[in-house]
Amino acid sequence: MNTEEMLVRLHRIGLALSSERNLDSLLQLILTEARRFTTAEAGTLYLREGDRLRFTVAQNERQDPPGSCSASAGAGLQNITIPIDETSIAGYVGASGRLLNFEDVYAIPADRPYHFNRDFDARNGYRTRSMLVVPMQDIAGRVLGVVQLINARDESGTVVPFAPALEPLVHSLASQAAVSVRNAQLTRDLQDAQYDTIFRLSVAAEYRDADTAQHIHRMSRYSEAIARAMGLPDEEVELILHASPMHDVGKLGVPDAILQKPGKLTPDEFLAMQRHTIIGGKILAEARSAVLQVSESIALTHHEKWDGTGYPRRLAGEAIPRPGRITAVADVYDALTSKRCYKPPFSRDEAVEIIRKGAGSQFDPEVVATFERILDTIAVIQKQYADPEPPRAGSPVAAPNTG
Amino acid sequence: MNTEEMLVRLHRIGLALSSERNLDSLLQLILTEARRFTTAEAGTLYLREGDRLRFTVAQNERQDPPGSCSASAGAGLQNITIPIDETSIAGYVGASGRLLNFEDVYAIPADRPYHFNRDFDARNGYRTRSMLVVPMQDIAGRVLGVVQLINARDESGTVVPFAPALEPLVHSLASQAAVSVRNAQLTRDLQDAQYDTIFRLSVAAEYRDADTAQHIHRMSRYSEAIARAMGLPDEEVELILHASPMHDVGKLGVPDAILQKPGKLTPDEFLAMQRHTIIGGKILAEARSAVLQVSESIALTHHEKWDGTGYPRRLAGEAIPRPGRITAVADVYDALTSKRCYKPPFSRDEAVEIIRKGAGSQFDPEVVATFERILDTIAVIQKQYADPEPPRAGSPVAAPNTG
Repeated sequence: MNTEEMLVRLHRIGLALSSERNLDSLLQLILTEARRFTTAEAGTLYLREGDRLRFTVAQNERQDPPGSCSASAGAGLQNITIPIDETSIAGYVGASGRLLNFEDVYAIPADRPYHFNRDFDARNGYRTRSMLVVPMQDIAGRVLGVVQLINARDESGTVVPFAPALEPLVHSLASQAAVSVRNAQLTRDLQDAQYDTIFRLSVAAEYRDADTAQHIHRMSRYSEAIARAMGLPDEEVELILHASPMHDVGKLGVPDAILQKPGKLTPDEFLAMQRHTIIGGKILAEARSAVLQVSESIALTHHEKWDGTGYPRRLAGEAIPRPGRITAVADVYDALTSKRCYKPPFSRDEAVEIIRKGAGSQFDPEVVATFERILDTIAVIQKQYADPEPPRAGSPVAAPNTG
Repeated sequence: MNTEEMLVRLHRIGLALSSERNLDSLLQLILTEARRFTTAEAGTLYLREGDRLRFTVAQNERQDPPGSCSASAGAGLQNITIPIDETSIAGYVGASGRLLNFEDVYAIPADRPYHFNRDFDARNGYRTRSMLVVPMQDIAGRVLGVVQLINARDESGTVVPFAPALEPLVHSLASQAAVSVRNAQLTRDLQDAQYDTIFRLSVAAEYRDADTAQHIHRMSRYSEAIARAMGLPDEEVELILHASPMHDVGKLGVPDAILQKPGKLTPDEFLAMQRHTIIGGKILAEARSAVLQVSESIALTHHEKWDGTGYPRRLAGEAIPRPGRITAVADVYDALTSKRCYKPPFSRDEAVEIIRKGAGSQFDPEVVATFERILDTIAVIQKQYADPEPPRAGSPVAAPNTG
């Protein structure tokens, strides 16, 4: 491949990288393309976190042959960070912004500040030989990470040094990678900002009710777990997770006198209470954002029942949108297992029994079946987001004026 | 410049494009770089909107010599859209995804479906001759826009045809541009989604109060206008615009019995009412997103007074963060000029007089001076977001239960 061909390829890679906005997929893609471009057998990608580099992705063609699940650093490796300083190869490259190219890392002269750590090789029966280590710098020169490419191979598969002619090209590729990583991080931050806004205001909106931030956490996590176990696509699962906190936002339109009434509601009061579904739908109506659209659907339909006896529209069966069917189970299970001023919490078994009995009448039988299948996960969430003792201290702001 | 040098340059341009996330700046940059790359004297950029192309940016070096304010299409031009079909040059390129290269657009054969429109030349005393028209396609092949490059020049400044060798390179550049445009649009959409979430929930939170969606609009637009007229940087102005809707979100923590009390509040009730500032601050505390951080500051400080007699912390002078000082004026002016169940609206002059008298005691004198300087703008906003008649019909959801 001549330089012109290399440049054309580099340009195509640049396009592919800048088109990928999911950070995890992007990091895999960067390492895969950098390895292909340099015929490297293995590689590692580190991302900057403050003044350290976090070991983020590893690929090794010998150990993860094509078709196997290569890819992400294992859970253990993800916890490894190294300082950005001269004591390690990647740290040196991160600190200096300069590329390093070794014919054989076992032959690094002893007077260098860094040395190669042979532990990984020893543990894995691997022999790291040639290595090209490149800083990922954005156009302002900031180092966002380091790509470490290992064991270039010639056409026969023999390990050879990385050609010095590759260096500027790989440096360019890493720059494009840095820009793409920065963009993907900003995208994620913006997404997180919206989710954070939704969550805070959902908690605040429940403020006048008996519910707590912990209820919102549990209910949305239960919904997420059910959606995932039902096999919905990741994107839909994520939408349900982030949209469900707003299920009761319409309670903002219900007066304290009804919302906080200690005794039984009159039929008229009950109707006014039911309007929280319609009010929620109106608050969220006609949004352009996908998560608010799902929120609208959930706000409107989380009190519908499978047999058509729910409210506000008496929808039945699959006419109830799936997010509403899922959150209905999650919301009721959490209400049953929570302490309220007017009732002690039901035990987990009692609550599950009530949900089970509601399958086909109150609830979608498929949602209930899935829920029963993942009771272990439900229990973990329940424990993780348990209400603190005493019961109301976990309220994010202060105790409500429940009169 | 040989092909290799061109490719290296193309790669650098790609990096610059993918680093720019502001859509307006990006579109200017795309056209500038494409013109530089092809030595084109002028150019136009169209963005796709559904099945039409919108004329978005125009540059002409002859008519906007360096140093002059070149750039964006004027307000009139921005309204021009053309169908994506074979009847125009740009439309043809958008529909076919194919590049067109003309030596002289006045010599386009009559049997082509498109023709060159000479009106612009006639109006501007310009002679369009050579033209290179390129589709902006993302890697899935979707056309996001069209770049039209006009009058390539050789080193002596003479208009020459665009070299066919440039075509694939410019096509690549346009692809990178498309990816960057898509990213910038997605970024803007995500930002808008967060702002939309904030606005909807701010309106909903005011639901129990006498305030309306129109109040939120007016108050945030007044704040924006004052901030801009004070010379704050665009970014800060935008934050104030989008953060100020949440100024009263803490009212969620104030019971109906106090919020909606028809008569005068007792001292204890007034203290409970004042707590909405602290509650709002807690709802928004420790957010990572810039707009929520400004919201927190505004929620906490919009009732502080310049002379230190406000609440909740009796801050004085510049110890009150600027967004709080700005929104204080905007909020009070809107309350004064709005009808309430307990008072008719003050006239504009009366309200301005009250604000003026508060300069140096209740309000930051600089904010008041700025406010008085832009009364025309304030009047426009006031009219644009006037409460509909009858007064409460504009409530986004339904009339509150004000008892």
